[in-house]
Amino acid sequence: MTHKIAILGASGYTGAELVRLIATHPTMEIVALSADRKAGMEMAEVYPHLRHLDLPKLVKMDEIDFSKVDLAFAALPHGLSQALVRDLPENVKIVDLGADFRLRDPAEYEKWYGAEHVAIELQKTAVYGLTEFYRDEIKDARLVAGTGCNAATVQFALRPLISKGLVDLDTIICDLKNGISGAGRALKENMLFAERSTDVLGYAQGGKHRHLGEFDQEFSLLAGREVRIMFTPHLVPVNRGILADCYVQGDPEAIHAALVEQYQDEPFVTVLPMGQLPGMGQVMGSNQCHLGVVGDRVPGRALVVSALDNLCKGSSGQALQNANLMLGEKETTGLELVPVFP
Amino acid sequence: MTHKIAILGASGYTGAELVRLIATHPTMEIVALSADRKAGMEMAEVYPHLRHLDLPKLVKMDEIDFSKVDLAFAALPHGLSQALVRDLPENVKIVDLGADFRLRDPAEYEKWYGAEHVAIELQKTAVYGLTEFYRDEIKDARLVAGTGCNAATVQFALRPLISKGLVDLDTIICDLKNGISGAGRALKENMLFAERSTDVLGYAQGGKHRHLGEFDQEFSLLAGREVRIMFTPHLVPVNRGILADCYVQGDPEAIHAALVEQYQDEPFVTVLPMGQLPGMGQVMGSNQCHLGVVGDRVPGRALVVSALDNLCKGSSGQALQNANLMLGEKETTGLELVPVFP
Amino acid sequence: MTHKIAILGASGYTGAELVRLIATHPTMEIVALSADRKAGMEMAEVYPHLRHLDLPKLVKMDEIDFSKVDLAFAALPHGLSQALVRDLPENVKIVDLGADFRLRDPAEYEKWYGAEHVAIELQKTAVYGLTEFYRDEIKDARLVAGTGCNAATVQFALRPLISKGLVDLDTIICDLKNGISGAGRALKENMLFAERSTDVLGYAQGGKHRHLGEFDQEFSLLAGREVRIMFTPHLVPVNRGILADCYVQGDPEAIHAALVEQYQDEPFVTVLPMGQLPGMGQVMGSNQCHLGVVGDRVPGRALVVSALDNLCKGSSGQALQNANLMLGEKETTGLELVPVFP
Amino acid sequence: MTHKIAILGASGYTGAELVRLIATHPTMEIVALSADRKAGMEMAEVYPHLRHLDLPKLVKMDEIDFSKVDLAFAALPHGLSQALVRDLPENVKIVDLGADFRLRDPAEYEKWYGAEHVAIELQKTAVYGLTEFYRDEIKDARLVAGTGCNAATVQFALRPLISKGLVDLDTIICDLKNGISGAGRALKENMLFAERSTDVLGYAQGGKHRHLGEFDQEFSLLAGREVRIMFTPHLVPVNRGILADCYVQGDPEAIHAALVEQYQDEPFVTVLPMGQLPGMGQVMGSNQCHLGVVGDRVPGRALVVSALDNLCKGSSGQALQNANLMLGEKETTGLELVPVFP
Repeated sequence: MTHKIAILGASGYTGAELVRLIATHPTMEIVALSADRKAGMEMAEVYPHLRHLDLPKLVKMDEIDFSKVDLAFAALPHGLSQALVRDLPENVKIVDLGADFRLRDPAEYEKWYGAEHVAIELQKTAVYGLTEFYRDEIKDARLVAGTGCNAATVQFALRPLISKGLVDLDTIICDLKNGISGAGRALKENMLFAERSTDVLGYAQGGKHRHLGEFDQEFSLLAGREVRIMFTPHLVPVNRGILADCYVQGDPEAIHAALVEQYQDEPFVTVLPMGQLPGMGQVMGSNQCHLGVVGDRVPGRALVVSALDNLCKGSSGQALQNANLMLGEKETTGLELVPVFP
Repeated sequence: MTHKIAILGASGYTGAELVRLIATHPTMEIVALSADRKAGMEMAEVYPHLRHLDLPKLVKMDEIDFSKVDLAFAALPHGLSQALVRDLPENVKIVDLGADFRLRDPAEYEKWYGAEHVAIELQKTAVYGLTEFYRDEIKDARLVAGTGCNAATVQFALRPLISKGLVDLDTIICDLKNGISGAGRALKENMLFAERSTDVLGYAQGGKHRHLGEFDQEFSLLAGREVRIMFTPHLVPVNRGILADCYVQGDPEAIHAALVEQYQDEPFVTVLPMGQLPGMGQVMGSNQCHLGVVGDRVPGRALVVSALDNLCKGSSGQALQNANLMLGEKETTGLELVPVFP
Repeated sequence: MTHKIAILGASGYTGAELVRLIATHPTMEIVALSADRKAGMEMAEVYPHLRHLDLPKLVKMDEIDFSKVDLAFAALPHGLSQALVRDLPENVKIVDLGADFRLRDPAEYEKWYGAEHVAIELQKTAVYGLTEFYRDEIKDARLVAGTGCNAATVQFALRPLISKGLVDLDTIICDLKNGISGAGRALKENMLFAERSTDVLGYAQGGKHRHLGEFDQEFSLLAGREVRIMFTPHLVPVNRGILADCYVQGDPEAIHAALVEQYQDEPFVTVLPMGQLPGMGQVMGSNQCHLGVVGDRVPGRALVVSALDNLCKGSSGQALQNANLMLGEKETTGLELVPVFP
Repeated sequence: MTHKIAILGASGYTGAELVRLIATHPTMEIVALSADRKAGMEMAEVYPHLRHLDLPKLVKMDEIDFSKVDLAFAALPHGLSQALVRDLPENVKIVDLGADFRLRDPAEYEKWYGAEHVAIELQKTAVYGLTEFYRDEIKDARLVAGTGCNAATVQFALRPLISKGLVDLDTIICDLKNGISGAGRALKENMLFAERSTDVLGYAQGGKHRHLGEFDQEFSLLAGREVRIMFTPHLVPVNRGILADCYVQGDPEAIHAALVEQYQDEPFVTVLPMGQLPGMGQVMGSNQCHLGVVGDRVPGRALVVSALDNLCKGSSGQALQNANLMLGEKETTGLELVPVFP
């Protein structure tokens, strides 16, 4: 059986990444691609790298016949998803790549995104899309809320440690290096090539980044108390990838053992041997997450590093992984891509 | 039936690219990986991006039991292939990614590579590996000589024009922009990041590049007279890709029509609409070649641009395409990868 | 004596480069900086790298008291300079970095820039700002029209050859590799980091680039007949620099000799030894232009390569060089900066 | 009076940077350049960007007549400086850019560098070259030991805080992003362009980096007790620059005030307004260090960020600043270069 797929917001980078992945998926067929400003264009004009594929033309969302769609990926700007997704017919399963359904508490949503949530009933049914930890709920969900890319990267490193009480909860510091595709295709002066190509620059420092809402929610839930990590993302002149350095107080060997145990059967999460740490480049273009642990010269301090491709495992790959589960397919189908290096 | 594959010289970039492609090939199994200096190491140590794959350890070539190998890819330094390939048992089919069997005339080989050929009898049986033009011979060959990556890029643009007499043969100028992975993983001061990252630099200018041997051979054969193009490659700070600007004297419309006709049924060569030209980045990570034509403001002048990924379509992807044919598989198997962008 | 300097359009890259150069100039003082949308901001906000300098705040152009300005650099969008420069008081000398006064023939201006010229009387008095060839006229000029950055790069390579009749005029092909700062700081989707960082892409191919107006004007004047070169610029993922490969038919030794003779006493133009060619990176951040010549294996063909920094020697450095002459200063003052490498 | 300068180890990146800076210094003259493997070559062959300068040929160190040298910069591999510097005649002042004289305790030297120190008497006389904190001693020194580039970057951020007891000494974490020129020009596979250009990778994690010797020495001295920071450098695909994120527990406002007070009269260290943080790119090519402070959403946590150019302020610029003091020149001479952007 072939599943009919719509991609809403296909002109952004995560939309294009979904097309790349689904193009070789044996049981999915892209039947609709929507865009707003670029409606009416061929995908080959918007993304020349997809030229050789046979794809539907970009249309406005309201031109799509959703009665013939099994699952829609919503790669829409934050804030738009709520209303649009609320209005989709019941037959359509939804994987939302945006932020609108990630936070269970509407007050938290309003705090981080600066606007009231308009689809609170729907939000109550949404499952948080970190596949490796919400697999069972995702299988039965109609609406899955994809995680933030930073949120995914850090949670792979820290969830097992917090669950097992292996690290001090008040001194966790996460310093992230982020590929620039994470900023999307929107026009911003500080995203021009000449601005970014010889610079490394932090942003949203001091606790202002919206993905903190996800960290607060998930880590507090795991710990059974309030957890507030310190989190600093940085723009580095690379297209794809997130490298998260997580500084924790705890026993490095126990930390490593907990990660190995957690992920030993996971197809997309690999824990390196003790003392080895991954680089951002070794997962590029793939759905892999690599984790490593090293102890500091001062006992009781450890560094846990997590690396993934923000557009793939951090967003569109995760989305496809969840869609596979929701549609009864094998979780790994279409996602066995080997990283591209160099 | 599963074909048993050996990759000789697996520690170089083209070797790693072969592993990337074959890892998801449904009817090929990698049974041996050889390396010289790095024999004894796990592939995960040499290439961390391949860590999640189940691969044999790197060994010396003479440790391989070739009686159990159906086809060997030889990604060896130029000059080594001849003797090694000569000594392989008859049951092993060979796709050579190096330069040793590309030139049919031993005198030309000696002129461009500075050493006498030591396997002339074998060379006589080698088929030139530009799949789209030597498909029938490749199907029946035991030994296929992969083309140079520059040679492939330019030939896709020019072969149909020369065959049909559409361009002046004495004024062809090809200016290439080359991703740096083409230089391989060997240690050279001028290939350090700090040397290359803010530079664009020509090399082997003035007719010194070895791929000219292939151009001379193939274009003269097509034209029925001696053809000597002017050819200048340049290092640009990109990992993968070749963009070839081919300046010719001829009628742009006729040139475009000839390319469209030639490649209309080819799965891996796409001709853009008249007046559109490809960029290097739109084929990255894939086996696609994109071609475009534009006429100059001065009538009778045209620019033909060709873009491909040097490690994939220009080398390892071409090699797999040929291997598929030699083993009776569908030509496109394992090569449907969509380009990675951004 | 200190010269009072205004920079009009200081929020663009060439404006910032002028500030960088003039900041250490011993006899120039920046008294006014204008910007349009960013008026009211401190330069440190617009360009953090200039933070440690003591600079006037950005203002609207009409807030400047031009009675206290000796010389104004106009780094304004094409089309705006004409009217603004026309209305400046007579006491102000002007170096225009834009395109408005480069073409002597108003019909040519209209053809390339798509609008009628509104300051034709002033245009008649403008001197073309290629210092090394118009030095005497520049000394006495009130208005100097800076050249296009591509136009400068190629003219350094070709003017002496055309003047002396050393090359065939009908087969000149110039293939340029251009740093991305040349596109300026304007918001364009195709100038985003993620779009450009792994791509090389030609643009305005086929004779559509506006700098062709300058080539047509200058080369035809030198040759005494119409000259129409073929010219293709390319975006390469580097911030600064232009590398021009000029393919010509002529005698390489004679060409090299002509360049050596032309530039032997020039402080900012260096001709490399015969057979050596420059790279783009070796002039970055400086006012140097490096030239080289190599002969092809086919006699009678030659490659002449020219490299300079588009923001410095190709624009703001050239502008300061001209300003020095116009103000009676030593031509090289403030421009002795050594290239930055790596 | 002109000071006669020798640069020992001029073929490395810090050597070339010294030439760049000194070339426009009004009272210094380069009389000798030494290199080992490249002795006999012209500097223009080794560094084409220095071609237009009139420089002595590279020679072996023992070919230099040191009786005519006032000051030598030693940019030699670690371990070589000791013996070479020990044997220089007394008339020669020395600025050592290497690590050999940075650690006062020979046991610490042996611990971090794995070899016994062979010039212990000389080491006792060496002054640590962090100009802004050792200015008076440097003026009278014959031998100044340049700091590590990471060591300089972090000390500018932390010294005033530790001196004044403003931060918890046991929880300092420094996460650095390092331009690749810091690895020098030596041939290493992992420094090839293709390896580094799409990767971000930590190294020497867990307390193994040699610059920790300097941190331990200096911070413990300031605090009057043992201080052991946690320190992780990362390779980012940029040529020049270090960005240090220093995570501390303390009052952000007090920290900012302490930095402002410390550096208010320093020509080369700028403290940004409270809440603003620098990027790596805003100091490129200059002798500037930019510092910023932001408080976290959790009270009592702060982030202090320091940015400088590793080859300039972090090494050769610092060296020239010290040489100016040692020779009785103005400290800033030759160092007023404005950062290059973009």
